[in-house]
Amino acid sequence: MADKAQLQEAIKTQGEVVRKLKSEKASKEQIDEEVAKLLQLKAQLGGDEGKHVFVLKTAKGTRDYNPKQMAIREKVFNIIISCFKRHGAETIDTPVFELKETLTGKYGEDSKLIYDLKDQGGELLSLRYDLTVPFARYLAMNKITNIKRYHIAKVYRRDNPAMTRGRYREFYQCDFDIAGQYDAMIPDAECLKIVYEILNELDLGDFHIKVNDRRILDGMFAVCGVPDEKFRTICSTVDKLDKMAWEDVKKEMVNEKGLSEDVADRIGEYVSMQGGQDLAERLLQDPKLSQNKQACAGLTDMKLLFSYLELFQVTDKVVFDLSLARGLDYYTGVIYEAILSQTIPAPAEQNGADEAGVSVGSVAGGGRYDGLVGMFDPKGRKVPCVGVSIGIERIFSIMEQKAETSSEKVRTTETQVLVASAQKNLLEERLKLTSELWNAGVKAEVLYKKNPKLLSQLQHCEETGIPLVAILGEQELKDGVVKLRNVASREEVDVPRADLVDEIKKRTL
Amino acid sequence: MADKAQLQEAIKTQGEVVRKLKSEKASKEQIDEEVAKLLQLKAQLGGDEGKHVFVLKTAKGTRDYNPKQMAIREKVFNIIISCFKRHGAETIDTPVFELKETLTGKYGEDSKLIYDLKDQGGELLSLRYDLTVPFARYLAMNKITNIKRYHIAKVYRRDNPAMTRGRYREFYQCDFDIAGQYDAMIPDAECLKIVYEILNELDLGDFHIKVNDRRILDGMFAVCGVPDEKFRTICSTVDKLDKMAWEDVKKEMVNEKGLSEDVADRIGEYVSMQGGQDLAERLLQDPKLSQNKQACAGLTDMKLLFSYLELFQVTDKVVFDLSLARGLDYYTGVIYEAILSQTIPAPAEQNGADEAGVSVGSVAGGGRYDGLVGMFDPKGRKVPCVGVSIGIERIFSIMEQKAETSSEKVRTTETQVLVASAQKNLLEERLKLTSELWNAGVKAEVLYKKNPKLLSQLQHCEETGIPLVAILGEQELKDGVVKLRNVASREEVDVPRADLVDEIKKRTL
Repeated sequence: MADKAQLQEAIKTQGEVVRKLKSEKASKEQIDEEVAKLLQLKAQLGGDEGKHVFVLKTAKGTRDYNPKQMAIREKVFNIIISCFKRHGAETIDTPVFELKETLTGKYGEDSKLIYDLKDQGGELLSLRYDLTVPFARYLAMNKITNIKRYHIAKVYRRDNPAMTRGRYREFYQCDFDIAGQYDAMIPDAECLKIVYEILNELDLGDFHIKVNDRRILDGMFAVCGVPDEKFRTICSTVDKLDKMAWEDVKKEMVNEKGLSEDVADRIGEYVSMQGGQDLAERLLQDPKLSQNKQACAGLTDMKLLFSYLELFQVTDKVVFDLSLARGLDYYTGVIYEAILSQTIPAPAEQNGADEAGVSVGSVAGGGRYDGLVGMFDPKGRKVPCVGVSIGIERIFSIMEQKAETSSEKVRTTETQVLVASAQKNLLEERLKLTSELWNAGVKAEVLYKKNPKLLSQLQHCEETGIPLVAILGEQELKDGVVKLRNVASREEVDVPRADLVDEIKKRTL
Repeated sequence: MADKAQLQEAIKTQGEVVRKLKSEKASKEQIDEEVAKLLQLKAQLGGDEGKHVFVLKTAKGTRDYNPKQMAIREKVFNIIISCFKRHGAETIDTPVFELKETLTGKYGEDSKLIYDLKDQGGELLSLRYDLTVPFARYLAMNKITNIKRYHIAKVYRRDNPAMTRGRYREFYQCDFDIAGQYDAMIPDAECLKIVYEILNELDLGDFHIKVNDRRILDGMFAVCGVPDEKFRTICSTVDKLDKMAWEDVKKEMVNEKGLSEDVADRIGEYVSMQGGQDLAERLLQDPKLSQNKQACAGLTDMKLLFSYLELFQVTDKVVFDLSLARGLDYYTGVIYEAILSQTIPAPAEQNGADEAGVSVGSVAGGGRYDGLVGMFDPKGRKVPCVGVSIGIERIFSIMEQKAETSSEKVRTTETQVLVASAQKNLLEERLKLTSELWNAGVKAEVLYKKNPKLLSQLQHCEETGIPLVAILGEQELKDGVVKLRNVASREEVDVPRADLVDEIKKRTL
């Protein structure tokens, strides 16, 4: 707990920081952050009466999940986890923070988005940025050379949040990865099959999965005449093709990245190509590409991949697309990205935003990263890996919006029956019956009031979707029965107490 | 990525820190932490060849969960979540970090154990220390006045880890809380019922649940003659009675905390008392205690609580124990703690430790905290709360040790069938059948090899516990059948391909 003088000093310093930024006309984003910090310090100091006033909010870019959102999340997770288990995956978990060192040098420019922990004496730690690097660390540390695992957990990026589009600073990743030395493209094909199954089951409308290969991209750049040292930066420009027109991408290549016009035009020809196995075959005949060893290896694998995808019956949604160029440095072979066709309507409360209907974009992506584990191994031993990551927050956003427009109510509990009474002084009897139901595995609730009105007990059922009410009264107790009421139909029937559990289970199957 | 000169500078500075601590004969703990930091910096610098050498470890006090541990964790969570749902609870989730401000002033002396995030420009953040304070913040922020919720998530404490005893710096809490203005002791009794049900179902051996009340403790201290300002510190001394003999506790009270001998002796008489409803009734007649308003209120509620526990049939395990004094400042009424009777055998690899068999101790605890939400509300509006937290890491430790000594193997996947072949060149056929099974919802695996040996396919089943193998061969394909093999009994039977899914489902119910 900071002392008052210290706080006042800190407020003064922070005030100067804000004034300086304003005078320098710094970005709104930056000023807002510093102002928030200032307000937080002021709040810590408290008001006039010395009363502590809290800033009641979650940290920027994070959110609470309320019970309704949790119910949706559970539904989505169940579908995804069932699919991972159907494919024989195990699961692991790793800590939320890693030695800072472990994350260093894996994310290129995005390293600036890593959250560091304060040095409180001890190790230097950072919050995990994804689940892939901790997975590679886990494999190297435990000398595991093959595993098929999934991992669902939160990761952290100090990015500019766009929460209305499902982009947060704390968000879930659902990763599935296959590590091990296997015959070509079989695990890769299974990853695509999994994406296909999950997107189908989630019922989010039409989608397609773009596939490409790092080696094909590199080969293409080489034969187009891109200098080696520009591969990465040109690659990240190509990656913008899903948001920008070719003309603008070309401008960036020529004006900002210094490519000559005709090199850019040659790239332009390739990156407009889309197809399936046929395109891979055609490009293997391409007079320039076929001369490049990297490109040939990639194209041969692509052909093989499509033959497996055919067996898995997923080729209707998979497109070999030469413009796909995912960001991360660590990919070494096949890469892919799944894109939903539908757009999300812009939320009503989002005034001033010029996005009339936001395209959801990528909801899953992944690829092959054969070098990452070797980066951790003291002897550099490689473990080939391929995996996929499901972008669950965007999927939650869609499901939440669907639930809002749907007439069907989202239930947040699974309660089967409320134990109620119409008369006074029956609390003990209600508690006793509730306990009997719990002991028999029935999901049951009872209002925590001595003498609740029957109406408020029935209202509780209406509000929360509890389908049944077990009503106790003097007469029922005397007769050894319970009045079982169906909330929706208002039908009531007397059930012998000994049969109650069976009757409830039968009605709530 | 730090540059080399910077790193060398940092290493030099850190080296001096270590030397200084050693010359000052600082604690081993402190020196070790700084040495670890030094080694980490050195590793970052890399070896002679400039090759990067990683420190391959998880952060101190944290651990990875391997697939076997995850399988156990899933089993434990399922039991706990089922119980919470049986009692009609919803679930929420909150971010892993909160504004530092939100956590400040809630944990008394333990505040020093909070992990802060580095100030990277923006808000000042800390990792959550428990799930109770974020829950209170959530209620105040969303103006929620009643909810029954559970929350299972990791919390963070920079404590001295004792991992062999299930104590970590990152660990799970499973919390169940009831918020709302209700009639006395009904939600409190339900919390105890839940602890009882969970510990019973987890099958961890005998246990008992101690119950006391903050108001009874305060009243007791008052009538014994403890000065008001010493209530807290005497309370924390009493809290040591589960680990220390009364004589030593008394010594601490008299010698360290400055109580007079007879005040301590009067406390000693009370804190040796244990019982049930009868004890509450007897103490209500106690000439001194009955004069104290606080104590009377607590004892009256305790009597009522036991009458509800009677209806819930859990009084066999619940003990009213006047020596129970849980640490946290925010409790206002009833408090409780569940204790397992069994001891854990000390792990073999833990050499040098003098703990021959560690008593597991508390695995659940909680109580009533009617003031916490009001601390966050701008107008100080109170929301009464009562809750319980299950100490899941200790339970994992016990379950893991049980699994190790048990002959039954822990399965880490749920795969029902492996699609195999005894002949070469059947990869495509294996993939096709596997895909058919996935599409029908069967959990199926296939080895990622073109031509695996039948023996290695069968071995994979033995190792991972897959119960069935679907074997394809030229003959089977011709006959339109699949050979279904039971791994355990080695029995084989030809099943028409059209019946395969049903047959597998029937055999793996």
